[in-house]
Amino acid sequence: MTAPWKALLQQALASNTSPTSQWPTLATITHDYKPRVRTIVFRGFIGDTTTSSDTDRVRWEDMLVFTTDARSAKVREIVANGSGELCWYFPETREQFRLAGTVRVVLPPHHTMRIHEADMPNSGIDWEELRKHHFHNLSPGARSQFLWPNPKQTRADTSGWVQAINDQDTQAISEALKNFSLLVFEVQGIDRLELREHPNRRMIMEKEGESWRVTEINP
Amino acid sequence: MTAPWKALLQQALASNTSPTSQWPTLATITHDYKPRVRTIVFRGFIGDTTTSSDTDRVRWEDMLVFTTDARSAKVREIVANGSGELCWYFPETREQFRLAGTVRVVLPPHHTMRIHEADMPNSGIDWEELRKHHFHNLSPGARSQFLWPNPKQTRADTSGWVQAINDQDTQAISEALKNFSLLVFEVQGIDRLELREHPNRRMIMEKEGESWRVTEINP
Repeated sequence: MTAPWKALLQQALASNTSPTSQWPTLATITHDYKPRVRTIVFRGFIGDTTTSSDTDRVRWEDMLVFTTDARSAKVREIVANGSGELCWYFPETREQFRLAGTVRVVLPPHHTMRIHEADMPNSGIDWEELRKHHFHNLSPGARSQFLWPNPKQTRADTSGWVQAINDQDTQAISEALKNFSLLVFEVQGIDRLELREHPNRRMIMEKEGESWRVTEINP
Repeated sequence: MTAPWKALLQQALASNTSPTSQWPTLATITHDYKPRVRTIVFRGFIGDTTTSSDTDRVRWEDMLVFTTDARSAKVREIVANGSGELCWYFPETREQFRLAGTVRVVLPPHHTMRIHEADMPNSGIDWEELRKHHFHNLSPGARSQFLWPNPKQTRADTSGWVQAINDQDTQAISEALKNFSLLVFEVQGIDRLELREHPNRRMIMEKEGESWRVTEINP
């Protein structure tokens, strides 16, 4: 059964034309239980770019993909605690989606934070192929940040910083791929608020085994 | 000493004209350590509407104010754990502010979740006056939601729901004020990312006693 929230979210993404409508915020928790939240860029569903031979296909193909740097604080936080919530506001259709779930990090092979080579659950998905696919989808300018000095250290002299990585820069691509990582978000519950009508409409969708329970609630 | 982040945030608020630029997301933590994040509406700084006679004036006047319903899940979460982070993206100036700090709830007097009448720290600020000020600042339509049935319960028949509370509806105002509450956010650390330049600029500001330490860092 396809998740009922997916069609609603796809419809919102198609109806809201501002680029910022592809940018939800992601909340996670630090090792000492402080909340953290930052804007991230939605890169699509797993099912947009890959197919799985697994019987659990729908579950995997509905997961949301974001890109990040293995050196970022959020990767360390997520490796330690994978609980997350996404908040997505769509200004043109006046809807808010809150998606609670689990975040996983697709790190480069042999990265020290990988516990073992098979730390992503068996899914029939080639994670390394998916990681490279999303790196190549980035603009040359966006790729370059994966070669910049370590995030959050005192700002280094920028004169030597790479500004773009083009398709033919195989050495730079190989180096950048040592930091480039994916975040994969598995949705477990949705809280959707529609502000168009007054009184507002609100519904929750909760996963129960393989199906979803949809309840309309007071806003 | 005025906090150095305040002028930067005020400048961003003045330069970004879309109404959604007044709407950051707030991340908090549930009692069982799950992250939660939702869009909230910024209502100004405490110093915009009140003055304090306290010697600690600057600290209080720089706090950010948001409005909420005492019956909402976020109020229960914040009463149990006041750690919060705000994420604010300004699309016109391409800046992100992340503000880490402490959230406090200004509940109606005699509310059962108030531990005692003086649970807000001594500040020389009249919290009940501030609460009423912000209620009266809302539109008649926005005021009405504080009389709707309990949030998150199965949706009730909407035929009897109040749609507006006008200034002369003293009985309705009095009832709505039993639910209307404020969130007050005290900033302890800032992470500001500017995307206009490439490489991007990023700075952190951390409170150290009564002063702020500003560091430019790699993005």
